[in-house]
Amino acid sequence: MIPSRQSQYQQTMTDQSDQHHRTFKDTPTGYRWGGVEHKPYKEDDRALFNAVSRQTLFSRPDMSGELRYFEVDAGGHSTLERHEHVHAVLILRGGGQALIGDRIATLSTNDLVTIPPMTWHQFRANTGDALGFLCMVDAIRDKPQLPTPADLDALASDPAIAKFLAQ
Amino acid sequence: MIPSRQSQYQQTMTDQSDQHHRTFKDTPTGYRWGGVEHKPYKEDDRALFNAVSRQTLFSRPDMSGELRYFEVDAGGHSTLERHEHVHAVLILRGGGQALIGDRIATLSTNDLVTIPPMTWHQFRANTGDALGFLCMVDAIRDKPQLPTPADLDALASDPAIAKFLAQ
Repeated sequence: MIPSRQSQYQQTMTDQSDQHHRTFKDTPTGYRWGGVEHKPYKEDDRALFNAVSRQTLFSRPDMSGELRYFEVDAGGHSTLERHEHVHAVLILRGGGQALIGDRIATLSTNDLVTIPPMTWHQFRANTGDALGFLCMVDAIRDKPQLPTPADLDALASDPAIAKFLAQ
Repeated sequence: MIPSRQSQYQQTMTDQSDQHHRTFKDTPTGYRWGGVEHKPYKEDDRALFNAVSRQTLFSRPDMSGELRYFEVDAGGHSTLERHEHVHAVLILRGGGQALIGDRIATLSTNDLVTIPPMTWHQFRANTGDALGFLCMVDAIRDKPQLPTPADLDALASDPAIAKFLAQ
């Protein structure tokens, strides 16, 4: 059957499969988007991170920024690390806390977080919820550095940070 | 009074005023963030856009991307335009529709939209809700181009697009 003008119009108006439009799904195992690869949890032997997944929402050769989505299950945490490149973060779901240098910020949905260059940071879903956040970075960026034992000692000399890291 | 170790700890754990943490507020006039300038509606004589506000969430000399937040009141719309730079969009609140080239996408919260180079586009809060969206762009980018009468005629030759633009 040849579609009528009206049905062509309806198709245009309701089509969700356009390559430039990726639809969101709130699933029992977390936020997902059509056409976006979900990189599931891979637990780390050294317990550097725990219960974190990553989805790259935008990464294109003709853009100099990238947008990723990280989701931390309740009780989980991201890697404690630092690097020269900046993280520009928006909390998309839930809440938690973040270590940013020598400060601990308590985060709610839609809050903004800036991780400046060479600043130790870690995100923790430690307030009962999952913590999902968008993270904008430069596509060209340095690799993260992990803390040495001396770095960890220096961080843990602040009792609030020691308690945060020990959760 | 000299604060005790315990009260210092509590202060660190609950402090919301850190320059690297900007808190979100859902206000009667739209989404807002502490320390982020809200550029309110400026109506355009040529009706190029209507009831749109802009907030720049992240723009730093040491990042090559920028993240902005646009909010369109129910019934409003963004400028119909095209440019060489790409828009990487995430719908943060509400829903609506977007013209992307010759397609019309119906958008829900958290959906992703890519506006490729030199693609006519317009966002409309035409489904009863406000439409708020994040838009990642390169900090270095070209200026938007507006359609000529001939461009508008070409777009409007598709009845679905003509109806979309006439709302």
